[in-house]
Amino acid sequence: MKVIFPRVIFFISLVTLLLSPLSQASNHGVDRVEPPSWWVGMQHSQLQLMVYGKDIATLTPQVQVAGVRVVNTETTDNPNYLFITLEIGEAVKPGDLRVDLLDNKTVKAGFDFNLAAREPGSAQRQGFNNSDAIYLITPDRFANGNAGNDSLPQLKENADRKNKGGRHGGDLDGMIRQLDYIAAMGFTQIWPNPLLENDQPAYSYHGYAATDLYRIDERFGTNEDFRRFVQEARQRGLGVIKDIILNHIGSEHWWMKDLPAKDWLNEHDTYVETNHRRTTLQDPYAAPSDKNAFVNGWFSRGMPDLNQQHPLLATYLVQHSIWWTEYAGLSGIREDTYGYADEKFLTRWGKALMTEYPNFSIVGEEWSNNPLMIAQWQRGYTSANGHVSHVNSMMDFPLYEALRSGLLNEESWDKGWIELYEALANDHLYPDPYELVIFPENHDTSRLFSYLHEDKNLYRSAMIWLATMRGIPQFYYGGEILMTSPRERDDGAVRADMPGGWAGDRKNAFTGEGLSSAEKDMQSLVRKLFNWRKANPVIHIGKLMHFAPEQGTYVYFRYNDNKTVMVILNKNTENLRLETARFAGFVSKASEARNLLTGEVADIRKFVDLPARQSMILEW
Amino acid sequence: MKVIFPRVIFFISLVTLLLSPLSQASNHGVDRVEPPSWWVGMQHSQLQLMVYGKDIATLTPQVQVAGVRVVNTETTDNPNYLFITLEIGEAVKPGDLRVDLLDNKTVKAGFDFNLAAREPGSAQRQGFNNSDAIYLITPDRFANGNAGNDSLPQLKENADRKNKGGRHGGDLDGMIRQLDYIAAMGFTQIWPNPLLENDQPAYSYHGYAATDLYRIDERFGTNEDFRRFVQEARQRGLGVIKDIILNHIGSEHWWMKDLPAKDWLNEHDTYVETNHRRTTLQDPYAAPSDKNAFVNGWFSRGMPDLNQQHPLLATYLVQHSIWWTEYAGLSGIREDTYGYADEKFLTRWGKALMTEYPNFSIVGEEWSNNPLMIAQWQRGYTSANGHVSHVNSMMDFPLYEALRSGLLNEESWDKGWIELYEALANDHLYPDPYELVIFPENHDTSRLFSYLHEDKNLYRSAMIWLATMRGIPQFYYGGEILMTSPRERDDGAVRADMPGGWAGDRKNAFTGEGLSSAEKDMQSLVRKLFNWRKANPVIHIGKLMHFAPEQGTYVYFRYNDNKTVMVILNKNTENLRLETARFAGFVSKASEARNLLTGEVADIRKFVDLPARQSMILEW
Repeated sequence: MKVIFPRVIFFISLVTLLLSPLSQASNHGVDRVEPPSWWVGMQHSQLQLMVYGKDIATLTPQVQVAGVRVVNTETTDNPNYLFITLEIGEAVKPGDLRVDLLDNKTVKAGFDFNLAAREPGSAQRQGFNNSDAIYLITPDRFANGNAGNDSLPQLKENADRKNKGGRHGGDLDGMIRQLDYIAAMGFTQIWPNPLLENDQPAYSYHGYAATDLYRIDERFGTNEDFRRFVQEARQRGLGVIKDIILNHIGSEHWWMKDLPAKDWLNEHDTYVETNHRRTTLQDPYAAPSDKNAFVNGWFSRGMPDLNQQHPLLATYLVQHSIWWTEYAGLSGIREDTYGYADEKFLTRWGKALMTEYPNFSIVGEEWSNNPLMIAQWQRGYTSANGHVSHVNSMMDFPLYEALRSGLLNEESWDKGWIELYEALANDHLYPDPYELVIFPENHDTSRLFSYLHEDKNLYRSAMIWLATMRGIPQFYYGGEILMTSPRERDDGAVRADMPGGWAGDRKNAFTGEGLSSAEKDMQSLVRKLFNWRKANPVIHIGKLMHFAPEQGTYVYFRYNDNKTVMVILNKNTENLRLETARFAGFVSKASEARNLLTGEVADIRKFVDLPARQSMILEW
Repeated sequence: MKVIFPRVIFFISLVTLLLSPLSQASNHGVDRVEPPSWWVGMQHSQLQLMVYGKDIATLTPQVQVAGVRVVNTETTDNPNYLFITLEIGEAVKPGDLRVDLLDNKTVKAGFDFNLAAREPGSAQRQGFNNSDAIYLITPDRFANGNAGNDSLPQLKENADRKNKGGRHGGDLDGMIRQLDYIAAMGFTQIWPNPLLENDQPAYSYHGYAATDLYRIDERFGTNEDFRRFVQEARQRGLGVIKDIILNHIGSEHWWMKDLPAKDWLNEHDTYVETNHRRTTLQDPYAAPSDKNAFVNGWFSRGMPDLNQQHPLLATYLVQHSIWWTEYAGLSGIREDTYGYADEKFLTRWGKALMTEYPNFSIVGEEWSNNPLMIAQWQRGYTSANGHVSHVNSMMDFPLYEALRSGLLNEESWDKGWIELYEALANDHLYPDPYELVIFPENHDTSRLFSYLHEDKNLYRSAMIWLATMRGIPQFYYGGEILMTSPRERDDGAVRADMPGGWAGDRKNAFTGEGLSSAEKDMQSLVRKLFNWRKANPVIHIGKLMHFAPEQGTYVYFRYNDNKTVMVILNKNTENLRLETARFAGFVSKASEARNLLTGEVADIRKFVDLPARQSMILEW
């Protein structure tokens, strides 16, 4: 056992958080309590506290508040951890709670714990859905609102804007400052890459190696700043989706110096890297060792793999997700590397969240272009292996792959638009394809614009597709101003700084200053598309019908009783007069079809004139 | 209405068939009756007769045999067709039946009809299953047993061996002559491409454009020859699978001169070619016009598309499949272009066959590498569109694609053996993957050996895979002697003449004469593999476990309580000592593992020595 020194920073943060002036003084013998607070009136009336302090495991908790009862105490092979389960009765009022830890009848240690009142409507909060459009931000690379927190003495890695794998200084203050911009672009949800402390010695800007699961990285701001970000966003009609990683932590997480239990991590003694063979989960013939290697192997040496089969850790992780949702006022969760976590735990985790917040939304990441791999995780899917999911959404990687490939390939019998058409045909597999998140790029891919060899017309077609296809569109910051990257994945380069996010930037995406006309045009197109989408339920929940691609075009309709939207994706290098007899059922009423992007009105009952390489949206 | 002259040839054939010397004379005013005979004691006690004769539709049928009753008479818009439904009571004895056709009370026409006794055990016949291995033959190209029927004056196309798209003279006599060869090779089922009359002016050898659904093409032999072929095959332990096409007929089918009904065909008035967009069937967003174009469009101008929604035609087609099964003694049906037929009809058709023959087997052809497209047609699949299937097997095109691609590609993270591994992982989707038919090539593909750039080691690996993988292996004639073709599909070339099938052939696959040592080696390998497979239930129904490919190898096991078979597919260009610790659960008992192909015995509990590029089968 290693001796742990209480960390001053933690206590300052905890004090801020709990607004309890007595906390520091009164937490004698206790170094940490997680979660750091809770609420009254939750669906889950039981709360498990992880209490950390030297040789604390032998002590017995005692609570003397009416309605709060210690129902269970558990210890592990590490004497410095005590897990206390409280039952919080319905009648309990918000306020501070004293937990004493006794040896025989003597109080040896203890802590104060806050039970707060919930925000009104918290339980019934509406998650993101297909009326939304998500703007994905890599916080370190978006906007530096506070240059004072770029490098901090108590955290290992300092800012270095010249290092593409280093920290660049983006933060919550910067994000808050640009909320008006994001809202004006027509987006309604923000998904920031993880903001939790990543106090790793290097390559920590991405946020996927958390070293403290209850603290925002101070280089981004404080927990309170994050809460303020969410509140400010909400005032602008923007929800916030938290990026949560159930599979792993960072190798510098404080647990790693004194593991809560020997089996807290997978494959800890003999480091094994995951084989990434995700098919093993459903494969009826997979060798158990391969499946174990997939689920229990580590992402990398810097990312210890959590053993969610450990019941104490499982409860810890469930509560962690609920805590942040309640604390910050989240509208949803994006769960990273979904299938890499334990399957049974995923069921429990999703169920707990959806029980606490019945209208909540969770989108999982399963990077596969096989729809069978995606569908298995969506709520309502009947899985051959018996898995039950409570997650309503998944990232639609199959359509992502089809979009990019279909755009890039020359049109032929089985390449081009047909790839999009056929990928979409698999939707019969999903319990609810309208709840999937569609995207043309993210922080882990190359920039679509670069992938398309900077072909603006193809890129424009992608934007039109993204704004009109079924599902919930997700956009990656900078795409609106044609940000580029190498064509092969290059994380640091893809996550380049948003121009205008840093003082002194000559180019400014937020003000338009210094943008080329092509960049301005694209930004304007994206703004128009997503504001239009926002106002048109026909795109959110309207029906969809598509026609097998012909003549270099792919035509689909979104429609309801009131409105019809016709989307024509077009790759023809010559102008084309497209006859519309094939779409008679739709175009019979289109004597005055309005071209959304040009404003032109035309009678398309017989044909549509398509300018070379121009895709279009027509509505009536 | 066109005047139809009775065709002498037809009557001769019918006489032969019914063994009824009176038929010709007594069928006055009736040109055709289909089916030409039936049986007593069938599950389906009702029988629909299509009766064809000038202005016959106004007549009323009368049967005066105890237990046989006319339950229904239907006519169409064509006065030359009369559809009579008979109820054949349980007590009816085999024998001839007189059907008189009356105008008022006067007999104007009539015919004799034979009700035969069924073969003992007919209803309970065992279809093909995973204990079988199928040998696919293109009859025109396999063996010419009777040079006298190569060209016949009454049939349009004559033999021309120099024309790769022409008729070469192969026939049933030739096939019968080589049954010993096929059986000795270890196969247990024969699937010949269609043998029905294809009296098209040209390009008729393939058999997929039938001009008479109740007559074997005379260039192959007679109906009786076909029955003899099946009987001779059965005596050698070989079942016969008939290739049936529900979707279309040939443009010279006799119906085309006087269609039974205006809506007998799809898209007859305005010829429309199928769009081949098979995803439309399950696609929740497909335009109905695209789905119609797929199902109702024609394969080609030479292949009129049958409208199986026509109830009289639907019954006709159901009875046609039952008739051939009962008449010839089939062990199964291979149904061509499965999804191109009407979905509801397919349900009815499969159900009727499986009701008549509960242990029968049907394998459908759906050419798609998307397992969702295949699984929808297998019995027991819960389809989102409500389709119910009764077909127990499908051609496994996804594994076919994965095999070829996986063999050809260099090993990498996502190419090579991993393609086979990941394709197999989708098996959780199928109601019963062990009943799928796996194959490395068929009459519509390029030759695998050529596709693999004539790499004998890769080809050898394919043979090992085919003989040990789950499912029912299907082999294409000539593959055993390394027959080649262009790498791109070229039907006439792929379906080249089997050496030795024609008098005067210098090379003879059947005797071995003139074969190169490489050809002999491959033939010997195939013979060994399939004879071994035949004797080893562990391959038929044993469990399967596979390990994610590593080190250029793909290892899987077939096992039951008594036996373990280890298959190592290997692409390494250097010798490799493969450690077996990863397979400990299997190899712990393998102190004397026998190499099937070399006969060597080795202790593989710690490692296996793999010669460069050699795949192997080990058993213990």
